[in-house]
Amino acid sequence: MALTAFVEVKPDSHFSIHNLPYGIFKHRTDSTVTPRPGVAIGDYVLDLSAIHSAALFDGPLISGSDCFHQSNLNKFLELGRPAWKEARATLQKLLSSTEPALQNNASLRQKALLPMDEVEMLLPIAIGDYTDFFSSMHHAKNCGTIFRGPENPINPNWFHLPIAYHGRASSIVISGTDIIRPRGQGHPSGNSPPYFGPSRKLDFELEMAAVVGPGNELGKPIDVNEAADHIFGVVLMNDWSARDIQAWEYVPLGPFLGKSFGTTVSPWIVTLDALEPFACDAPNQIPPPLPYLAEKVSKNYDISLEVQVKPAGQEESFTITRTNFNHLYWTLTQQLAHHTINGCNLRPGDLLGTGTISGPESESYGCLLELTWNGTKELSLGKTTRKFLEDGDEVIISGCCKGNGYNVGFGTCSGKIVPSMP
Amino acid sequence: MALTAFVEVKPDSHFSIHNLPYGIFKHRTDSTVTPRPGVAIGDYVLDLSAIHSAALFDGPLISGSDCFHQSNLNKFLELGRPAWKEARATLQKLLSSTEPALQNNASLRQKALLPMDEVEMLLPIAIGDYTDFFSSMHHAKNCGTIFRGPENPINPNWFHLPIAYHGRASSIVISGTDIIRPRGQGHPSGNSPPYFGPSRKLDFELEMAAVVGPGNELGKPIDVNEAADHIFGVVLMNDWSARDIQAWEYVPLGPFLGKSFGTTVSPWIVTLDALEPFACDAPNQIPPPLPYLAEKVSKNYDISLEVQVKPAGQEESFTITRTNFNHLYWTLTQQLAHHTINGCNLRPGDLLGTGTISGPESESYGCLLELTWNGTKELSLGKTTRKFLEDGDEVIISGCCKGNGYNVGFGTCSGKIVPSMP
Ligand SMILES: [Ca+2]
Ligand SMILES: [Ca+2]
Ligand SMILES: [Mg+2]
Ligand SMILES: [Mg+2]
Ligand code: NI
Repeated sequence: MALTAFVEVKPDSHFSIHNLPYGIFKHRTDSTVTPRPGVAIGDYVLDLSAIHSAALFDGPLISGSDCFHQSNLNKFLELGRPAWKEARATLQKLLSSTEPALQNNASLRQKALLPMDEVEMLLPIAIGDYTDFFSSMHHAKNCGTIFRGPENPINPNWFHLPIAYHGRASSIVISGTDIIRPRGQGHPSGNSPPYFGPSRKLDFELEMAAVVGPGNELGKPIDVNEAADHIFGVVLMNDWSARDIQAWEYVPLGPFLGKSFGTTVSPWIVTLDALEPFACDAPNQIPPPLPYLAEKVSKNYDISLEVQVKPAGQEESFTITRTNFNHLYWTLTQQLAHHTINGCNLRPGDLLGTGTISGPESESYGCLLELTWNGTKELSLGKTTRKFLEDGDEVIISGCCKGNGYNVGFGTCSGKIVPSMP
Repeated sequence: MALTAFVEVKPDSHFSIHNLPYGIFKHRTDSTVTPRPGVAIGDYVLDLSAIHSAALFDGPLISGSDCFHQSNLNKFLELGRPAWKEARATLQKLLSSTEPALQNNASLRQKALLPMDEVEMLLPIAIGDYTDFFSSMHHAKNCGTIFRGPENPINPNWFHLPIAYHGRASSIVISGTDIIRPRGQGHPSGNSPPYFGPSRKLDFELEMAAVVGPGNELGKPIDVNEAADHIFGVVLMNDWSARDIQAWEYVPLGPFLGKSFGTTVSPWIVTLDALEPFACDAPNQIPPPLPYLAEKVSKNYDISLEVQVKPAGQEESFTITRTNFNHLYWTLTQQLAHHTINGCNLRPGDLLGTGTISGPESESYGCLLELTWNGTKELSLGKTTRKFLEDGDEVIISGCCKGNGYNVGFGTCSGKIVPSMP
């Protein structure tokens, strides 16, 4: 018999019993309840602290741990895959329609199963370091073509290693947080001083990001074939980008203020275990990767991704791109193994962004830079058009895996642009 | 009468009563004493937790705070300049030869004044984000000449903004920690695949780094004329760099694995208040900076800097460069103001590296890349020579301000190269 939850899960819900993504929530009204871990199920959040206090985590790894009495998931992430599997098995059983322990305990249900609209989601992890990769070949090719022309748009190093830069951890915010338009310098025109003021080329970047589990000690690289055990799960990410600031500052040391004003992540971390049924082959890599990047099994995931824009002052949202996680050239595990090959240490809760996920067709590009070809064409949004984002525009990223009669989804990752401060 | 300490301070000591730098120490032998804040005085460390427990911090800002009962300085940094000034005044008084409170209390002295060789210094701060600037014009010019030739070696943006990249926070280590030679990819030769193995161009970079105080909220830039209140102090820093890895990976997103295998900082944070007597004019900037970078007073500091190398298997160290902090083109306060102009938030304990500090003469260059002109000439070290660092080599950076009869010094920042793991 198929696994079903005793809690109602509507057919289009992202949060079936096959998903059970982890987040950190607080009550909207009851401020005496400290922020704590929960999993999403249908339109509810299950309070893991309450479940632990009720002694319903009966497995050996979780029962004695205080990881669900924390205000972030880092302690749980540190425990590693055996504990993650144990927690998942416990929760799938507890929530299943055939299990009475929670289903038939009205007072515990009342306490532990909270309607989603009564909670506010917080950043689920304390992020020590955030790295952003550049793993979509279509994105790399489009950026190269826009900035350097159609001949050899992709640098030769790109095919040998997952290119990345260190991002800014402090300005990572949870979905729903307004994004203040950054001010900064842009390229001078002629002999004038550089432009200074609010960015005139504000963009989003559709990305996903891996959340690191146990990590490694300084000096001890993680083998690519063991890298999956260091990835707890995945979130949606919007790497907001000010293209004018970025273009002027990035030579020779890479993106800095063009990116560091804000990065939005979705509240629910979907685990690799939940994504496993949606695993698919990663693209064939030519030239073949060096041995330290050559995986026995090279996996992508079939995750449909979509970006909607709700233009300032309008009620309607418009889908501007549809793409898929499986377009990535470098896998999450290759990214992680590469990151540590020099001995760099990863810590629980570190975030590894994939880079903008663009597909091959122009309707599947993952940012406005590509969609409007650096502002040379207009994108139509109902009665209005855009080259870049305007104040009041809201960008909503969503992602979902479609199973047989159920979804394993990510919910949304959204943010609205508000004007620069004077 | 000049301020003198009741503790013996030898004439060449870096740690006069005019200095009083902050660090975190633990006892080498007594593991029941938790890591805690201390200040250096002569050959001693003063235990600030013991002084606080003895109620000798009698000012209003520190007396009620638990900031000196922490295992890092972040809580103290968050308090801001008024608290830093209060603590400094209290400690200068307590340690002065005219003040009996500590001097004449033998049991407290015994407990709170520890010989330096009985303690081990730890990383003094929890570093949320680490940024590395590129603020020496001589360094920028040399790097540009080496990699792009002598015509226009410095990119035009360099003169308009303090160029920087996000660094890796997790791999920052305290002076004395061995540095494992990183492995990684280097440029392919001809049609071969890229080189892979231990770096063959391992380098140091002589830098200093500012330690951020209170910081700012996301979206609220710090005015350049108020930026000094957000800098607690300064440390020595060695931004170890693998030039072969860096050269192959850095286009287009900047340095990544060529830097992230390790960054060493000195244990003692010298405060801006202690450096104030050594303030000097910053260089005249042409073109003039944009208004947000134009300071009413533009300060550098006269800090003599020196790098010694102790080659593998030898007992003797050789001074390979002598330079000065005052060679920096962009000031610490300009760096900090620029960092936040886009709204990026800084947090207490964030680290802002200056970039390699090279002077104008070839004996004042701050890294081997410059000193050996990317390995095209040999550097003589007694009976041996180097183009880049070899396993077993130790690099020792030191820095000191010479006052009238006293020093305000940084001690040393050292690290030894150990071989890559197989
Ligand atoms: Ca990105
Ligand atoms: Ca550097
Ligand atoms: Mg961003
Ligand atoms: Mg480094
Ligand atoms: Ni419990």
